[in-house]
Formats: sequence, structure tokens, C-alpha cells
Amino acid sequence: MASKRLLLLPGDGIGTEIMAEVEKQIAVLNDVAGAGFETETALVGGSAYDAEGAPVSDATMALAQAADATLFGAVGGPKWDGVSYDKRPEAGLLRLRKEMELFANLRPAICYPALADASSLKREIIEGLDILILRELTGGVYFGEPKEIVDLGNGQKRAIDTQVYDTYEIERIARAAFDLARTRTGKVTSMEKRNVMKSGVLWNEVVTRVHREEYPEMTLEHELADAGGMKLVKAPKQFDVIVTDNLFGDMLSDIAAMLTGSLGMLPSASLGAVDAKTGKRKALYEPVHGSAPDIAGTGKANPLAMIASLAMGLRYSFAMIAEADALESAIAETLEAGIRTGDVMAPGSTEVGTSGMGDAVAERF
Amino acid sequence: MASKRLLLLPGDGIGTEIMAEVEKQIAVLNDVAGAGFETETALVGGSAYDAEGAPVSDATMALAQAADATLFGAVGGPKWDGVSYDKRPEAGLLRLRKEMELFANLRPAICYPALADASSLKREIIEGLDILILRELTGGVYFGEPKEIVDLGNGQKRAIDTQVYDTYEIERIARAAFDLARTRTGKVTSMEKRNVMKSGVLWNEVVTRVHREEYPEMTLEHELADAGGMKLVKAPKQFDVIVTDNLFGDMLSDIAAMLTGSLGMLPSASLGAVDAKTGKRKALYEPVHGSAPDIAGTGKANPLAMIASLAMGLRYSFAMIAEADALESAIAETLEAGIRTGDVMAPGSTEVGTSGMGDAVAERF
Ligand SMILES: CC(C)[C@H](C(=O)O)[C@@H](O)C(=O)O
Ligand SMILES: CC(C)[C@H](C(=O)O)[C@@H](O)C(=O)O
Repeated sequence: MASKRLLLLPGDGIGTEIMAEVEKQIAVLNDVAGAGFETETALVGGSAYDAEGAPVSDATMALAQAADATLFGAVGGPKWDGVSYDKRPEAGLLRLRKEMELFANLRPAICYPALADASSLKREIIEGLDILILRELTGGVYFGEPKEIVDLGNGQKRAIDTQVYDTYEIERIARAAFDLARTRTGKVTSMEKRNVMKSGVLWNEVVTRVHREEYPEMTLEHELADAGGMKLVKAPKQFDVIVTDNLFGDMLSDIAAMLTGSLGMLPSASLGAVDAKTGKRKALYEPVHGSAPDIAGTGKANPLAMIASLAMGLRYSFAMIAEADALESAIAETLEAGIRTGDVMAPGSTEVGTSGMGDAVAERF
Repeated sequence: MASKRLLLLPGDGIGTEIMAEVEKQIAVLNDVAGAGFETETALVGGSAYDAEGAPVSDATMALAQAADATLFGAVGGPKWDGVSYDKRPEAGLLRLRKEMELFANLRPAICYPALADASSLKREIIEGLDILILRELTGGVYFGEPKEIVDLGNGQKRAIDTQVYDTYEIERIARAAFDLARTRTGKVTSMEKRNVMKSGVLWNEVVTRVHREEYPEMTLEHELADAGGMKLVKAPKQFDVIVTDNLFGDMLSDIAAMLTGSLGMLPSASLGAVDAKTGKRKALYEPVHGSAPDIAGTGKANPLAMIASLAMGLRYSFAMIAEADALESAIAETLEAGIRTGDVMAPGSTEVGTSGMGDAVAERF
């Protein structure tokens, strides 16, 4: 892979602060390991709206399409609550996902041993947890049309969102799930609401067929999304790979992340299809947490999820497995050494700020 | 209130067994307190499909429309997995909800002190938890049209579900939320995904207006449904009344129920509007748990959620507040006495079956 072009989109709120800590790790990769990453930075979200009039400009879209990987911080905040629906910060992220066709969103829910006590769950329930939520990211109710508010007169409005899934969209995410399961325990749990939604019926049918025809050696289980959510809370370790649609994936992956007690630590990867000609795939890496406007600018944000997102990028976009492992180990060692940001502070640990945490990881990387 | 006509719809799986325990409590009410309840029993779900060709017959619908309250067990099971979408067991429940216009679904998530240790969450996080999820039950993606699977040719199908909300539907559930909050701490949290869904935009707008114009003295907060789900898992006691749409309500109320560790104990009430002429409202009461086909017929099912559903019925349909309180106390006392079904068994407690549990409550009622 000749070029290693990274687009950095820090975004809003704590995005800028945590992205600065990623840049420290990239510097280590370049200086020490001669990795040769070239980075470029652009605006996204509310800050892009303020400066460029859109939550992601066409120029930035072009940069993202051309980059080997995009690192994304976070978007949104009360400052932009009044902005029109089309220009709201989140629209920038959704445009990136849709136009880059990043249909496969990998959200690992891992419980870092050093942080097990930060969970609201009992230690034995989450200690050692390592599951992967695979969320479909370019379909469903996020993008289906019609999506509109109609004025019915007499003070009545009607709001409509449309959940749409085509066979091919379910096939490709199902394959991604089984391919990932192959590198893990081989078990996939598919979640939908087939008892209420036609999209759930089709989802169930297609995942079942892909399993039978293409991955018969793997284990496939089905759960209704509500029952699956309950099982996640009760005994999350029973799962390995969970594959689900865009909206259920949004809910379930956030809940899974919170279970671990390690929300500020959890990265995600959004991947497109592998291009048959170039062998490359479009990709965007972002933390699971949001822009945390309440602590933005205070230097207190936890940059580990953002740094772990870089590690996912090394693994999935650049096949730099050793480097990805090393960066993930550096994060775990930093935590084991008792170095903590405020969100995961524990008695006996040493509290550091965003920058201190980035330095601590870079030292161990 | 002259008539006290109760329709009993036990349904499938453990439904029959747990409904029998409700009948014991009704007998206490009639024999000891002369309450004068008249009951009638009919089929619903898979058992109705088997016997009558539909998951709820027109005759049963008429009984439900005429009754003062309906007690519903649970429906569904693997036996009916192959049944067509229109005739599946759940369709019976959905028809009851829709045709009776039971738009307000009250799902209390209460942690019984005696059961706090059964939760996967740390005791201090859930001990004393008492929140109420108010789920909109007759709109949204459950009922919106189009809802279909279209054959596109070339092996491709397209599944469509439609999320629709009109202003009046949001207004009435918002009012229900504030009315309930008035009897509690006065705080309502509204959850939607306004950053992604137009229905979330309208939901937020209407709830905000109803609050400002009609309930300015109450506290209203808004959460995105994914972030709200995370907060539920992290610190559920920060909430009091949560109001949300049909699908988010399905997910969030199940998760809240599981948090408490008391799933087998949690009832729900589905209420229609109060009729201006008669002062009555249509109502259906059902446990939050499902039909548990795996333990059906073994006499092990926990009947407490079903019995607690009767207590909600006494409270909301018959204004029998003292009796409702007494029945709820009987449940709590039974648990305090260490009498447990297998699902909530703990060291030092006495294990009983479904019938033993029903008797134990009836004795204390
Ligand atoms: C910011 C928002 C649009 C987004 C989503 O709903 O997908 C976020 O919650 C996420 O999970 O990445
Ligand atoms: C049985 C099913 C149709 C139902 C629903 O999805 O509403 C159930 O999960 C519930 O929450 O009452």
C-alpha cells in the first residue's frame, strides 16, 4: 500500500482535543517506525456549518473519498440546536457514511480489566467481556424516503420516517458478520423485530439463507431486538458477534458500550466494500462517545476511544497488525499503571487530563 | 361503577398457568370483599389461531371492547414460527391494542428490595428504583403504512416499514406523561432521535409545546433515545417518568425491566382515552415478560407480574385503590417472607411453583 493518507475530522466539542492526542500517536508511528502517514485536517459538524455553511462541505467530502482512512472525532452540541434539520451537525456524519457507502459499522464492546469497577454492572457479569456489535450503517430508517413532516392543516402535522432494507444490503452485512465471527468464536446473533416489522422478516430470512448457503460451519442465533437488549443487560458474555440494523444497532451498541464501564475507551470502525480493482476499502474511524459539550475546552476529555479508533484504522485500513496490537497494549498498560482521566478515576489512581493521557499512551507505544 | 366485567385472555405458553393464579386473587376479592367481578375467558395468540383460525377472533374482539378491563397473559412460541405474518400470535395483541385505541402503555420499572440482588447491576445503582416508562402504543412503526415486502426481481426484495406520528398522537401521550408525573416527582424525560428522525423532530416539538402551554410547573427534559438508554443503564434513578414512542418504548422498557432484576414481577397497563360520556376508559393489563415457551407446562413460571397486572387494573380501571395497595403489599410481603419461584431463587429462600406462589399471595391478600 503506497499512500497512507489520513483525513482528520476533529468536529465539535471535545473532538479537537482528543484528535490532538491521536496526532501524537501518529507522530510516534512516523518518527519511530517510519510509517509515512500523511495527514490533512478539515472541518465537520457544527464547526463546519459555522465556517463553511454546511456540516460537511463538498471539498471535505472529496478529501474523505480520496483518503485511505478518515478519523472522525465527534459532532453536535447545544449551540446548533436551532439549525435546520438539513444542516444540523449530525447531517455531516450521515453524509460521510452514506456517500462513502460505509455499510459495516464495527463496535467492539470490551471491558478493560482495569476499568471493570467503573461499570454499573456487577464485576462478574462484565469482567472479560469482549463482544462485537456489527451495525448496518447506510440503510434503514436513517436514510429511507419519505422522511418528512407534512402540514395537515388544523394545527396537525404528520411526521414520517421510512425503514427500508433491500436483500443485497442485508446480504452484505450478514457476510461481514460471518467473516468477523470466523476470526472470533464463530457465533453470530442476529437481532430484529420480525414479529412487528416487515424489515425484520426480510432481515431474518436473508441472514438465515446466507448462513445456510455460505457459512454453514458457523453458529447463527436469532433474537428479537427487545429480548436481545434484555439479554445484553443480564448476561452480555453469552454473545460474540451481534449483527443488527442501523437503528437497533445505534441503541444496542450504545447500551453495550455503557455496560462495559469503558465508554470513553470504545472505538468504532465504519467500513465500505473492498474494491475489486484496488483491494482498498473506504473507512472511517470514530469513538462511540459523543462531543461532550459540557466538558469541551476543559482539557478533561478522555482521548482513549479516539486513540483506540486509530488502532482500528491501523488494523483494518493498513493491515498494520503489529502496530495496532502495540497501540492497544499501550492503552491497556496506561490504564493498568493507574493513569486515568476524570471519567474513569478510581481511588489510588493518578488523574491526568486529555493531554497527559495522550502522552502516557505515546510513551508506552 | 356498576359492572365489573373482566375479560381474561391467558394466551400461549405460561399464559394459562399464570392467569390461573390471577383467578385466585379475583376469588379473594369476590369472596372476602364482595367485589362482584364477573370474568369471562377467551383465546388469544397461537392458541386462538389453532382453535379459531385467527390470533384474535372478531368475537373475542367484541368481548374485549365490551369488558371493563382485559387481563392478558402472553402470546407466541416456536410452534407458530411458520405462521403467516398476518396470523402470527403477536398480531392478536397488536389488533387488541390498535382497535381498542390503547395508546398509553404504562410500564413501571420497580426494584423490589427483596430482589435487588437478582439484578445484574450493582445493588446501590438499582436499590429503591421506581421509574415509569410511558410508551406510545398505537402509532409509530408498529402500524404505519406502507408495511410490506416487495419483490424487485433478480432475487432482490425490498422490505418497508413506516414510522408515522401525527401531532394529536404525540399530544395525548405527552399529556398522559405529565398527568402521571403530577402524581410522582413532577419530572418527565422525553426520548426520541430528533437528530436522525423527522418523527423525533415533531415529537420533541409537540412535547415541548404541551409542557409550555399546559404543564409549565412540571420539569421536562429531553434525551436522544440512544443516550437515554445509556443513562438508564448507568444511573436509572435519575429518571422518573420517561415518555417515548412505540418502538423506543419497546426497547427501553424491556431494558429498564431487566435492570431491576425483577422482570418476572413487572406488570403493565395499556389505557385508552377516558370517554367523556361514560367516564370509562378501555384498558388491557399484561405482564412485561413473554410466554416463556421453554418452561410452559412445568408449573415453574413466576405469576407475580400477572398478579401485579391485576393490581394495576384495580387501580386504573376500577379506582379500587385500597385493594390495589393491598394486593401489591401481599406481593411484597410474599417476597420478603423468602417465598420465591425458580427465576428469582436466592440462598435461604423457599422455592415454590406457580401455584404455590399464587396461594402465598392470596393468603396475604
Ligand atoms: C450522531 C448520530 C447521528 C449517530 C447515530 O445516530 O448514528 C450516533 O448516535 C452514533 O451512534 O454514531
Ligand atoms: C409481543 C410483541 C408484539 C410486543 C411488542 O413488540 O410490543 C412485546 O414485545 C411488548 O413489548 O409488549
